[in-house]
Amino acid sequence: MVVAKVWKTVKPFEGTPKITDFELVEEKLADTLKPDEILIEAVFFTVDPYIRTLNLPTGLPAEQVGRIMESKARDFPKGALVLAHVGWRSHAILNVKETMNLGFKPTIVPKVPGLSPSLWLGVIGMPGVTAYLAFLERCAPKSGDVVIISAASGAVGSMVGQLARAKGCKVIGSAGSKEKCDWLLHLGFSYVFNYKTTSVEEALTQAAPEGVDIYYDNVGGEFTDAVMSHLKPNARVLICGQIADYNRTRDGVPNPFGRILFAEAQVRGFFIFNHLDEFPRVRKEIISLVQQKKLQPRETITNGFENMAQAFIDLFKGANIGKSIIKV
Amino acid sequence: MVVAKVWKTVKPFEGTPKITDFELVEEKLADTLKPDEILIEAVFFTVDPYIRTLNLPTGLPAEQVGRIMESKARDFPKGALVLAHVGWRSHAILNVKETMNLGFKPTIVPKVPGLSPSLWLGVIGMPGVTAYLAFLERCAPKSGDVVIISAASGAVGSMVGQLARAKGCKVIGSAGSKEKCDWLLHLGFSYVFNYKTTSVEEALTQAAPEGVDIYYDNVGGEFTDAVMSHLKPNARVLICGQIADYNRTRDGVPNPFGRILFAEAQVRGFFIFNHLDEFPRVRKEIISLVQQKKLQPRETITNGFENMAQAFIDLFKGANIGKSIIKV
Repeated sequence: MVVAKVWKTVKPFEGTPKITDFELVEEKLADTLKPDEILIEAVFFTVDPYIRTLNLPTGLPAEQVGRIMESKARDFPKGALVLAHVGWRSHAILNVKETMNLGFKPTIVPKVPGLSPSLWLGVIGMPGVTAYLAFLERCAPKSGDVVIISAASGAVGSMVGQLARAKGCKVIGSAGSKEKCDWLLHLGFSYVFNYKTTSVEEALTQAAPEGVDIYYDNVGGEFTDAVMSHLKPNARVLICGQIADYNRTRDGVPNPFGRILFAEAQVRGFFIFNHLDEFPRVRKEIISLVQQKKLQPRETITNGFENMAQAFIDLFKGANIGKSIIKV
Repeated sequence: MVVAKVWKTVKPFEGTPKITDFELVEEKLADTLKPDEILIEAVFFTVDPYIRTLNLPTGLPAEQVGRIMESKARDFPKGALVLAHVGWRSHAILNVKETMNLGFKPTIVPKVPGLSPSLWLGVIGMPGVTAYLAFLERCAPKSGDVVIISAASGAVGSMVGQLARAKGCKVIGSAGSKEKCDWLLHLGFSYVFNYKTTSVEEALTQAAPEGVDIYYDNVGGEFTDAVMSHLKPNARVLICGQIADYNRTRDGVPNPFGRILFAEAQVRGFFIFNHLDEFPRVRKEIISLVQQKKLQPRETITNGFENMAQAFIDLFKGANIGKSIIKV
C-alpha cells in the first residue's frame, strides 16, 4: 500500500500566503489499479502565482513531472515520466483518460538528450507556451519594436524578453533585484531597471523617449498606469497577469484589465483622423449600401449659418438624432 | 469683394459650450485668386462632438460642403460642390493642393441621383467611414454576435447598429429619449433602452444574459464600467469616443481608455488555460529553440517536497529567478 504525502490549506488565504496556512498530511491510496489507471510518484513540481487565485474543490492545484510506478494504461508504461496536474501530492493514482485540474490531460514527457524533464514545467510548459502564444502570436512583434515587460525575470517574462530579442526588438525589463537585472542584461535585454528604486516613468522617459510599441504585462497596478502614458500609435498591450491588481477597485469600480484578461477580450482604440487615405475606398462601399437601402441615413438639420453655434451646443444636450447638419 | 461670416470663440470652453462662448464676425477675403485657389460658399456644415476637444490655431474646425464660386484650380470647376475642412466660415479661399485642418484634402462631391450632398458629411462622411472601418474591419462581427452600442442614435452609433444588423448580429442600443429609442427599433435593433431611466446593468442582465461579444463605445465613463462585467470570452471592445471620460481621473490616474483611443492601441487579455490544445504544437517549437540555444531556461530549484509550501510563499517575495521548481 502506498501512502501519499499531501499539502493542504488549513484555511483560505488572506493576503500573502503564510506557512501557517498549510499542513502536510498523509493519505492512503487504493491497493490495486483499475483499467486505464496509473500510480505515479512525483519527481518535480512547479509552483506559480496563479495558484493563489484558485480555490479548487480538489485542493491546491500544481503540475508535476511524475514517474509511473505501476500502470494499467496503454501508452503509459511503468518507469516513464508523465506530466500530471493532480495537485500537491507525492503520490497519486489517476485515470489517463480523464482530464485533470484546469482541463489538462496526462502527457508522457519525451526523453530529449540534454533537456531536464523539469523544463516541461517551465520553458517547455505552461509559462513557456504562454510566452510563445501570447507574445509571438498575439503581439505582432517586429524588428525595431520597443517592448517593455513587467516581472521580466519571472518564468514568463524572461522568455518573452528572449523571444523579443530574437525578433530584433529593443527590450526593456523591470525586475526587483540587482541579481535579476544582471541576468536580464546577460540575456540581451537593452535596458533593465529595478522597480524598487526606479519608477516606470523615469525608466521609460530615459529608455523609450519615443514610446513603446508593445507592453507585455504580468503585473498590472501602478506599472500599467504609468506605461499607458507612453504608448506609441498602434501599440499592443498584452494583459497576461494582474498580480498587483486582481482585487483592486478604483472609486469602487473593479480593475477593467483583470476582466479583459479573464475574458481574453480585445480592446482597441480608433481615431478616424489617422485613416483619411481610406475614405475613397469606404465611401464607395457606403454609397452602394445607401443606394440598396441597406443603410438609412437620418439627419437633424438646422437652418441658417447664424444658428450654427446653437446647433453645436445642442449636440451636448442630445438634441440631434442621427447626423447634425447645418444648412446655410 | 467677398465678405465672409466667421464664427469664433471668445474664450476657451469651460464645461459644456455656451452661446456666450461664441461670436459671429466678418472677414474680408482677397479680391483675386492665385493659381490653384478656389473661392467657395458654404452650403452644408457638420458639427460633431470632437470639435469640443480641439483648439486649433486656425480656429474652430468643421467640415462643409461648399459651392465653388470662382476657380483657378484644375479639376475644381466653378459651380461644383467640394468638401472643405476650413472651419466655421460662410466663404473661404483655399488652395486645393494644400491640406486643410486635421489633414483633410479638398474633395469634389460627386452628383449621385437621390443622395443629398449633405450625406457626404454624415453617412458617407467622417462618421460613416468611422463606423465602417471601426466596426466592420476591426470588430470581426459575425452572425449571432451580441453587440451593444453606446450613444446608439448618434451619427456613428446608428450606422454601426445598421451594419451590425446586416451582419446578423443581435444589436442592443442605448439612447436618451423615447423618440430616439423608437427610431432605433425601427432600424431593426433587437433591444433598446433609455440610459436615463434604465441602467446598463439592468439592460444587459435582461437583454444579454450570456454576455456581449462586441461593445462599440462612443461614450466611456460609467457605461464602460458596467459593460466590462458582461464581456463574453473573446469579446471585442472598440473605443471610438469617450465623451464622458476624456478628462476623468480615478484616484488621480487618467482614464486608460482615452489613451487607448488616441494611440489606437490594441489591448488583449490572455488566459493560458483556454489554450491547452495548442501545447503540442508550441512545445515542438520551443524545444527546437532551446536546443539551438536561442532560449536559455533558468530554474530556481527547491529541494524536498516538505519545502513546497515555503517555495510557493517565496514566489510572492520575488525570491525566484526564472521558473520556480520543487525537486522531490
